[in-house]
Amino acid sequence: MNNLITQLFQIKYPIIQGGMVWCSGWKLASAVSNAGGLGLIGSGSMTPGLLETHILKCKEATNKPFGVNIPLLYPHAEAHIEILLKHKVPIVFTSAGNPALYTKKLKENGCKVVHVIANSKFALKAVEAGVDALVAEGFEAGGHNGKEETSSFCLIPQIARISQLPIIAAGGMYDGRSWLAAEALGASGIQIGTRFAACIESSAHTNYKEAIIKALEGETQLTLKQLTPVRMFKNELYFQLDAMISKGASSEELRSFMGRGRSKKGVFEGDLAQGELEMGAVSSLINKKESAQEIISELVKTYIEARKKLIENNFLS
Amino acid sequence: MNNLITQLFQIKYPIIQGGMVWCSGWKLASAVSNAGGLGLIGSGSMTPGLLETHILKCKEATNKPFGVNIPLLYPHAEAHIEILLKHKVPIVFTSAGNPALYTKKLKENGCKVVHVIANSKFALKAVEAGVDALVAEGFEAGGHNGKEETSSFCLIPQIARISQLPIIAAGGMYDGRSWLAAEALGASGIQIGTRFAACIESSAHTNYKEAIIKALEGETQLTLKQLTPVRMFKNELYFQLDAMISKGASSEELRSFMGRGRSKKGVFEGDLAQGELEMGAVSSLINKKESAQEIISELVKTYIEARKKLIENNFLS
Repeated sequence: MNNLITQLFQIKYPIIQGGMVWCSGWKLASAVSNAGGLGLIGSGSMTPGLLETHILKCKEATNKPFGVNIPLLYPHAEAHIEILLKHKVPIVFTSAGNPALYTKKLKENGCKVVHVIANSKFALKAVEAGVDALVAEGFEAGGHNGKEETSSFCLIPQIARISQLPIIAAGGMYDGRSWLAAEALGASGIQIGTRFAACIESSAHTNYKEAIIKALEGETQLTLKQLTPVRMFKNELYFQLDAMISKGASSEELRSFMGRGRSKKGVFEGDLAQGELEMGAVSSLINKKESAQEIISELVKTYIEARKKLIENNFLS
Repeated sequence: MNNLITQLFQIKYPIIQGGMVWCSGWKLASAVSNAGGLGLIGSGSMTPGLLETHILKCKEATNKPFGVNIPLLYPHAEAHIEILLKHKVPIVFTSAGNPALYTKKLKENGCKVVHVIANSKFALKAVEAGVDALVAEGFEAGGHNGKEETSSFCLIPQIARISQLPIIAAGGMYDGRSWLAAEALGASGIQIGTRFAACIESSAHTNYKEAIIKALEGETQLTLKQLTPVRMFKNELYFQLDAMISKGASSEELRSFMGRGRSKKGVFEGDLAQGELEMGAVSSLINKKESAQEIISELVKTYIEARKKLIENNFLS
């Protein structure tokens, strides 16, 4: 296998399932790993004890490599790292924080470390910290996102220009065509979030999964740029926020209005009106409920088809 | 030649130079057409008399096909159409308006008609109007843009899903890798704006060209969403607008502050502080002044390289 990402993680396909709060527990992560991709447990919504349970269940459910995503700014980050090391989780994706904090320690303990970035500045910090690969997350991605609003078309070549590390493209990734396009731009693998969030093994609420499947073009938007930019479905909550923002609301007013637990309310409890429905722009392309295995199979099938079509269409030679 | 776009326009490469106010007169358009792409005269900043002069000069400067871009909402649109027909301009790109207005008349007179869209709704209207191809313009593009903020990664497959017409991808298009990526997503050609706006034959002011070349990641942004969304360089004018918007300025206040002639001031007169410096997100990737011929040659070279790399990296079979 001469793909940098399949070699790095010892997996069959360079397809990563994004670690997503309230969606990706052991059930989704193990299903993706069993199908030949890399499943990630999203630890951002878990206590250390719960993360440990998910790791143990994931190990029971698959003998393939899997990983854990850790948002470094979350209060449990350090405790989560200890649990990963205790159970020798082979792969860690870190995000939202300083990659210099734990990369060395994790690598000394045999972990492969990947850091999620949305701009060149943080990519260079991650390279310096010694990570093994980068997730380049474009403007299209659901949930938290960069302030620069750099889309995958511009971000992937930008990151490829400044670093030799393998790149995993995230944001706008949906099928074999986006996978092939990401490769053309300089990525070696892709990370898919929203399509897996809507799949059968996701632990999200059915209402939220159906909202992804029903979402139309232009129905997700990046908002809350005054705080941390986040892409979400344009529901009642979004329009309330939008009205506040267009009247000049302060960061403090927005923070207070949002309160705590909005994404749990939306993604896990299925409150489609007042929950924060984090989802990517590809929601408009997703229109059926599938299993993780079906998603991976369809990705491989459409990738091979797109590749064949591109090779045949050799009009320049 | 089995490429839909090269066949449609009878050109060598499916590379279109976007029609851009204050940048693309006869000089740029003829240089691009002579290099094997398709040059477009941007008529949006021209009176009918001036457009006629540019068409005549373009015919003197090249015997290859060239076209004219017409923003349909501009006051001179109808007079411009008459001039195109008088001089038998073979290709017309229409934008910013209703494609049903002139498509039939243009086609009856032997013109190839392409309409620029940023969402599926307008794509379907253009298909119904009988156009020959669509430009799918993503969120990354400089200047006026769609309200949905759909990036090229999501827009191209979305449009390919609802229409069989050839697609020209615009927004985020920079080199052979983006060209190949656009093809992977379902496009048959690409339209490049900003890179040509900065090139030697562009009629834009040197200050503006240098601003493109110096622009860094995250230094362009989509703004003025209350009026018509426009992507511009984040200069003094941008930050003044941004301050007004975050204080809750009304559409009327923003319109009055912008006044008239801001893009002429920036792009043509080189006022980097108070002019509207329309440019695409790819500005961060552009770092040298080139001729149109050099851009086309480099596009073809990097396209062939990227294609070769993609074919060699056949890890799945």
